[in-house]
Amino acid sequence: MTNEEQALAAHLSWQGKIETTAKSKVNSREDLAIAYTPGVAEPCKKIAEDEEEAYRYTIKSNTIAVVSDGSAVLGLGNIGAKAAMPVMEGKAVLFKEFGGVNAFPICLDTQDPDEIVETVVRIAPAFGGINLEDISAPRCFEIEERLKKILDIPVFHDDQHGTAIVVLAGVRNALKVVGKNKEDCKVVVNGAGSAGIAITKLLLSYGFPDIVLCDKTGVLSPDAPDLNSVQRELLYSLNPRNVSGLLADALKGADLFVGVSAPNLLTPEMIRSMNSDAILFAMANPIPEVMPDVAKEAGARIIGTGRSDFPNQVNNVVAFPGIFKGALEGRAAQITEEMKLAASDAIASLVDEDVLDENHILPEAFDPRVSQVVSEAVKAHIHETNIRSSENGR
Amino acid sequence: MTNEEQALAAHLSWQGKIETTAKSKVNSREDLAIAYTPGVAEPCKKIAEDEEEAYRYTIKSNTIAVVSDGSAVLGLGNIGAKAAMPVMEGKAVLFKEFGGVNAFPICLDTQDPDEIVETVVRIAPAFGGINLEDISAPRCFEIEERLKKILDIPVFHDDQHGTAIVVLAGVRNALKVVGKNKEDCKVVVNGAGSAGIAITKLLLSYGFPDIVLCDKTGVLSPDAPDLNSVQRELLYSLNPRNVSGLLADALKGADLFVGVSAPNLLTPEMIRSMNSDAILFAMANPIPEVMPDVAKEAGARIIGTGRSDFPNQVNNVVAFPGIFKGALEGRAAQITEEMKLAASDAIASLVDEDVLDENHILPEAFDPRVSQVVSEAVKAHIHETNIRSSENGR
Repeated sequence: MTNEEQALAAHLSWQGKIETTAKSKVNSREDLAIAYTPGVAEPCKKIAEDEEEAYRYTIKSNTIAVVSDGSAVLGLGNIGAKAAMPVMEGKAVLFKEFGGVNAFPICLDTQDPDEIVETVVRIAPAFGGINLEDISAPRCFEIEERLKKILDIPVFHDDQHGTAIVVLAGVRNALKVVGKNKEDCKVVVNGAGSAGIAITKLLLSYGFPDIVLCDKTGVLSPDAPDLNSVQRELLYSLNPRNVSGLLADALKGADLFVGVSAPNLLTPEMIRSMNSDAILFAMANPIPEVMPDVAKEAGARIIGTGRSDFPNQVNNVVAFPGIFKGALEGRAAQITEEMKLAASDAIASLVDEDVLDENHILPEAFDPRVSQVVSEAVKAHIHETNIRSSENGR
Repeated sequence: MTNEEQALAAHLSWQGKIETTAKSKVNSREDLAIAYTPGVAEPCKKIAEDEEEAYRYTIKSNTIAVVSDGSAVLGLGNIGAKAAMPVMEGKAVLFKEFGGVNAFPICLDTQDPDEIVETVVRIAPAFGGINLEDISAPRCFEIEERLKKILDIPVFHDDQHGTAIVVLAGVRNALKVVGKNKEDCKVVVNGAGSAGIAITKLLLSYGFPDIVLCDKTGVLSPDAPDLNSVQRELLYSLNPRNVSGLLADALKGADLFVGVSAPNLLTPEMIRSMNSDAILFAMANPIPEVMPDVAKEAGARIIGTGRSDFPNQVNNVVAFPGIFKGALEGRAAQITEEMKLAASDAIASLVDEDVLDENHILPEAFDPRVSQVVSEAVKAHIHETNIRSSENGR
C-alpha cells in the first residue's frame, strides 16, 4: 500500500482520531452522587461565586480548542469545515501525545471573520486556550488580534507562530554552525502570507537588522499597492538597504533565505549569488523551494525543509504542545513575543554541542525532552502582568 | 466527610471529569505520516469531495456536543456558562460510560436565543448530535425547534425529552401494576416549564385522553394570560372535561399525578381525593411534592421521585445515552416522537414481570442492558425519511 492508501485505511479504522474519556468513573450510585447529582452542585456553586474556580474544578485548566474555518488546510486550500476535521483531530492528538494537553477540534461553518471571532468568544468558557489553525491570510491576522483583545486565555495561530518559533530555533543553531552573528546577517524571507509574516516578525524581534521580504512579485515595499495593513506596517521596519527588484536581486550577498512560498523557485544561480556559508530554509510543501542536493551542489552550507525525509525538518510539533503546556500551567493570559523567543531558545538548546552540525540543527520531533523543556522556558517568561486572573478581561 | 465535601474533593482531584484521548498513537515518524501530514490530506480530500465521508473518517459519527447557556442549572438557577461546566462534564461522562457516546461540553457565553442558535449551527461540523441541557423555558423550546429545522443532526433537550421518556416508562409499568388502562385514566401534570410541557406532550402522544396541566396558579386554560406560545398550543389538546380551579380541584378523582414543581405541595387530603390506586410521580428535587411515606399513608399505591434513596427513581440516565447511541448508529436526522415512545417502551420492558411491583416500575440506572436495549428500539424506529444524508439540509 502507498502512504495515501495506508492513511485512508487507518482513518477508516479509527473513525475519528480522538475520543472523550471519563476521568471520573461511575460504577455505583455513590459514584453518581459525587460526579453527578446531587454532588456536582457543589463545584457549580463555587464557580458561580468566583469564576476563577473553574480552573480548579473543570477541564478549563488543561483543555484547548483547535479552531479552524477550513479556509487554508494544508496545501489543499479552502476545503471547508468538515474536510478540515482530520487535520484538526490530528492536531488534537499531537497536543495530547506530545504535550499532555487535552484538545478538541472545533471546525466552524463560517468563514466570516466577525462570525468566527464571536463564535470563539461564545464557546470560550470551557477552554483554557485557543489554537487557531489553517485560517487563510490576511483574515487570520485580524481574527487572532481581535480574539487576543477580547479573551483572557492564550490565543495562538500555530501556522504563524509555531512555524516562526521553529524556524528561529533552526536559524540560531545554523548560525552557530557557520560561525556568524545575527547582527552581520542579511536575511531574505520569500512568501508574505501568514507564515512568512510571522517568521519575519520573530526574526525582527530576535534582532536581525537586515531583512528583505519578497513575494511572487519580488521585493515588497511599503508603498506597493494591494498590501494588507499587517504587511504594510511590518515593511516599514524592514529593508534598511532599500533593496528592490526580484527575489534574485534580494538574494545577492544574503546569508539566510527563508522560503514559505512555492516549489523549485530557487535556482543554483541564485544560491551561488548568496554570501558564503549560506543557510536556506526551503519550506514549500511537499516540494521545497530547492531540493537539498541541488542547494548543496550550488554552495549552500545548511538547508532545512518541511520534510521528514531530509535532514533539518522544520516541524511545528517541537513547539506547539510545549508552548500551550507552559502557557496553561503558568496561567498565561497571552502568549507574548518574549515567550515565543524563549521557546525557540529552548528548542535550539536541545541540540547538544556534540551533535550540532550542518545536518543537525533542530531536535527530533520524538525527543522526549522537548515539550518539558519548551513548557518550562515558556513558563519562566510569563510576567506577573500576563497572569490570567478574574480581574482582567472576561 | 459529607457528600458535599466528598464531591468538592473529588472534583478538585479530577480537575475536569473528562479528557481527550488519542485513538491513533504517534510513536514514530511513520505513525505521524499516517495520522498527520502528509497522510491526513487523503481523508480531507475524500470529505471535500463528499461531505458524507465525514461520517467515515472523523469523530462526527460518534461524538455529540453537550450544550448549555447556564441559565437553568440543576436547582441552582441562572449561574452562567462557567459554573454550568461541572454538570456538562458530568453529562459527558454519563454519555460515554453508559452509552459509549463521545460527548464534549460546550458552555456558551451568551443567553440570547438567536446567538445560541447561530453558535451551535457554526460549531456543528464536528458533531453528530446536539444535546441541549439546562436552558431555561420558554427559550429552550424555541432554541430546540430552530436548531432542529436548520441542522440535519439530532437535537435533543434532555431536560424535556429525557425526563418525559423515563416518566412515561414508569407510567406504563405503574398502570400494569394497578391494572388500569390509559384510556380510563385521568392525568394531572403540575408544572408547566420545560419538563412539564414535554411530559404532557409525550403522555398525549402515548394516548392519554384526559390530561389537565396546572402551574402554581392552578389549572391552566388556553385563554389564560401570560402563557407562552408552546403552552397555549398544547393546552388546546388538553382538559376535555374543562376542569377549572386549583391543583386540589384537578386532583379530585385523578388516577395519575406528575409533579415537576415544588416541595411538599401535595397534601394527604389531596391524595385522598384521588381515585383508588393512585400513581404519583413527585419529581421536585431534592425535596419532592410529597414524601413517599406520606403519600402511601394517604392511600397512594405507587410513588416515584427523582431521588436515588427512594424506590422508583426517575433517572434520565436510563434514557439519554441509549437514545443518542441509537440515533447516531442509525444515522437519524432527528429524534422523533415515535423514537421517544419506542425508547420509553424499551425502558419499561426491562423490568421483568417477576420483579414488577409497586416499588419496581423502572430499571436500575446500572442495569447493563439499558443503553443497548434503548438504542436498538430507537434504531428500529428510524424511518427512511429520517435518515441523515448529504441530500437533506446542511
